[in-house]
Amino acid sequence: AAVGLAVALEALPSVLRAGWAGRRRRRREVLFFPSQVTCTEALLQAPGGAGPPGAPAGCPCSLPHGESSLSRLLCALLAARASLELCLFAFSSPQLGRAVQLLHQRGVRVRVVTDCDYMALNGSQIGLLRKAGIQVRHDQDLGYMHHKFAIVDRKVLITGSLNWTTQAIQNNRENVLILEDEEYVRLFLEEFERIWEEFNPTKYTFFPQKKRSH
Amino acid sequence: AAVGLAVALEALPSVLRAGWAGRRRRRREVLFFPSQVTCTEALLQAPGGAGPPGAPAGCPCSLPHGESSLSRLLCALLAARASLELCLFAFSSPQLGRAVQLLHQRGVRVRVVTDCDYMALNGSQIGLLRKAGIQVRHDQDLGYMHHKFAIVDRKVLITGSLNWTTQAIQNNRENVLILEDEEYVRLFLEEFERIWEEFNPTKYTFFPQKKRSH
Repeated sequence: AAVGLAVALEALPSVLRAGWAGRRRRRREVLFFPSQVTCTEALLQAPGGAGPPGAPAGCPCSLPHGESSLSRLLCALLAARASLELCLFAFSSPQLGRAVQLLHQRGVRVRVVTDCDYMALNGSQIGLLRKAGIQVRHDQDLGYMHHKFAIVDRKVLITGSLNWTTQAIQNNRENVLILEDEEYVRLFLEEFERIWEEFNPTKYTFFPQKKRSH
Repeated sequence: AAVGLAVALEALPSVLRAGWAGRRRRRREVLFFPSQVTCTEALLQAPGGAGPPGAPAGCPCSLPHGESSLSRLLCALLAARASLELCLFAFSSPQLGRAVQLLHQRGVRVRVVTDCDYMALNGSQIGLLRKAGIQVRHDQDLGYMHHKFAIVDRKVLITGSLNWTTQAIQNNRENVLILEDEEYVRLFLEEFERIWEEFNPTKYTFFPQKKRSH
């Protein structure tokens, strides 16, 4: 059975490393899914309690407690200290939902954009995030808001094919890139801000056309 | 109305450029969708007839003949001279299908992996590609083969949220990254080869379980 692989990349080809003397390596990582199912409680405990993956979990459950593609994705998100922008077609993974709520509790400014057709589905995290006080905006278009990206502290871009659902995490062939890269972050932030403004709730109509009727 | 943006990135931060003296810039690009609808005939004419986007089209149709996110995606693919690996959840765009057939006609080694549930849908390009003699393999899993990536000449990775369908290209908010990057290409090629071997037709069963029944 295929199990997801998480691979840390060399930051730059060796010919370039000298140029980075004195600078730490920028994060570059690819996560492949399906992810092995592992216990993520150690990461998702009370605010401030998050440790690195693979640390003693303190959780007596029978799941493996090592690293997985999901645990590495959670770590990349939980590194946020100031801001988190999320642009997600579908969001129903309980673990990723808890991570986002944790960040909100810690004072990180979280903004979420999602697709209106998927926000109210069974198991969607969107209602829980809103109830917790997190700002959510959604499209009213006939097309889909099909992005699946996150921006951590305006510094790290997380993007790929993965919808944030347990089905996708555990069963699908998926990829997620984690890029600490000014230029990519800038372009995706601009896209986020365009969408955020376009989906301003003051522009919502009450009876929009439904995608499914077209 | 939102129109897709295609943005060429600086290859590297200025602090690093000196390290690249004598080396050409590596391609780094982000395409956002929906794409403006433009005429792509100039790119898709007979083998050898492809020109850069925006070149005189010779096509009298009433569509705009400038660049678009779709035309840039086509250009990135049509640059292939030796090999093209495609790993695509859904593939029904006629333009992208024509581009892949053109490459096959030019002698590029094309290999396609797709998801079994989508390969026979109305408008799918998969049957046409097979009829043209292109190798296609598909999953038989309960999970989805949800990747959407291409590898050009084992040198350039094209990956993102975009399924290769006209619906997605013209209506959805989507992103595609084009990365000329050894490390990313290596990791995605390894993933492609794992999937290619796992989906070897000698391993197919005749009456696999259907995803939809679960």
